Amino acid sequence: MDEVLADPIHKFIQLYNRDHQVPLDLVIKPGTEIFQNVPDEVNDKWFDYINEKGFFRDLPVIDGAVEAVKKLQQRYEVYIVSAAMEFRNSLEDKLDWLAEHFPFIDWKHIIFCGEKIVNVDIMIDDRIKNFSGFSGRSLLFTSPHNLLITEYERVDNWQQVLNKLM
Amino acid sequence: MDEVLADPIHKFIQLYNRDHQVPLDLVIKPGTEIFQNVPDEVNDKWFDYINEKGFFRDLPVIDGAVEAVKKLQQRYEVYIVSAAMEFRNSLEDKLDWLAEHFPFIDWKHIIFCGEKIVNVDIMIDDRIKNFSGFSGRSLLFTSPHNLLITEYERVDNWQQVLNKLM
Repeated sequence: MDEVLADPIHKFIQLYNRDHQVPLDLVIKPGTEIFQNVPDEVNDKWFDYINEKGFFRDLPVIDGAVEAVKKLQQRYEVYIVSAAMEFRNSLEDKLDWLAEHFPFIDWKHIIFCGEKIVNVDIMIDDRIKNFSGFSGRSLLFTSPHNLLITEYERVDNWQQVLNKLM
Repeated sequence: MDEVLADPIHKFIQLYNRDHQVPLDLVIKPGTEIFQNVPDEVNDKWFDYINEKGFFRDLPVIDGAVEAVKKLQQRYEVYIVSAAMEFRNSLEDKLDWLAEHFPFIDWKHIIFCGEKIVNVDIMIDDRIKNFSGFSGRSLLFTSPHNLLITEYERVDNWQQVLNKLM
C-alpha cells in the first residue's frame, strides 16, 4: 500500500513542516528514507507519526492507482498486501482507506501481514525485502528510497504497470 | 485463530445465554454452525456479536495451543494466519489477543487476510475452504461444524498436532 497505492511521504513532510518547520519542498535524496533527510534532532519523529491513530486514514492516493487497479482486475485476481502488522494503529485506518478509495476490492482480497509470504504470480512493491524468497515476477515500484537499486524490473508509475501487464 | 487457537464458541454461548436464555450447556450438532443451534428468532445475533468491538479480545485460549505453538517453533517457522478481514472490529482485538497469549509470535509472523493464499508447507485450519488451492499438507482441526468431513487428515487437539509434526 504505502508508496505504491498510498502516499505517506507527502503526509510525513506536512507533519514535519507543521511541527519542525522542515520545508514543504523537501527533496528526499535517492536511496535514502525520509527520516534521513530531516534534521537529526527530529529524525525519529517519523515513528511517532506513523504510530498515531489516523496517520494512514487520509493519505493521498498515488496518481493513477485507482484506475490502474480497476483495469488490472479485468485480467487478474488482484490482492492488496500490506505489511501493516508492525503498526497496530494502522489496521483500521488502512482498511477504511481501502474501503473509501478501492471499494471494488473486497475483504477476501485484502491481506495485512508482516512477511509477505503470499502465493501469487506477480508482486508490485517498493521494498525489495518483500521480494525475498518470492519466485514470481517482481515489479519494483519507484520510490525515492529504492532509486539506486538496479537488480529488479522497475515501474515508475501505474501507467507503466499497465503497459507491462495489460 | 478462531476454533484453533481461540474459542469463540464458548463466548457465543455466554452471550446467547445472557441475552436470550439459550442454555449454557448448548450442544452444537455435528456438521452445523452455532447459529443453527439456537432459536430461529435469534440466530442472526451471532453476526451482531462478532462485529462488536471487544468480542475477540477476551476469548479463551484453546487447550494446549500456547505450549504446542511454542514447541512447533523449535522446528518450524510458525505463522498465525487469520481470516480476520471480514470483521473490521476484530483486527485490533485479535492483534492484542495474540500479544497477550502468544507474545513469542512477532508481528512479521502474523497475517490477517481474507483468502489464505499463503505460501506455506503445512496448514492447520478448521475450515476446509482455506485448503482450497493449497498444495501443502492440510491438518483439519476438529470443530463441531467440520465433524462430518472425512476427506482431510484430522487433528482433534493440539497434542495430536504435536504427535504428528514433532
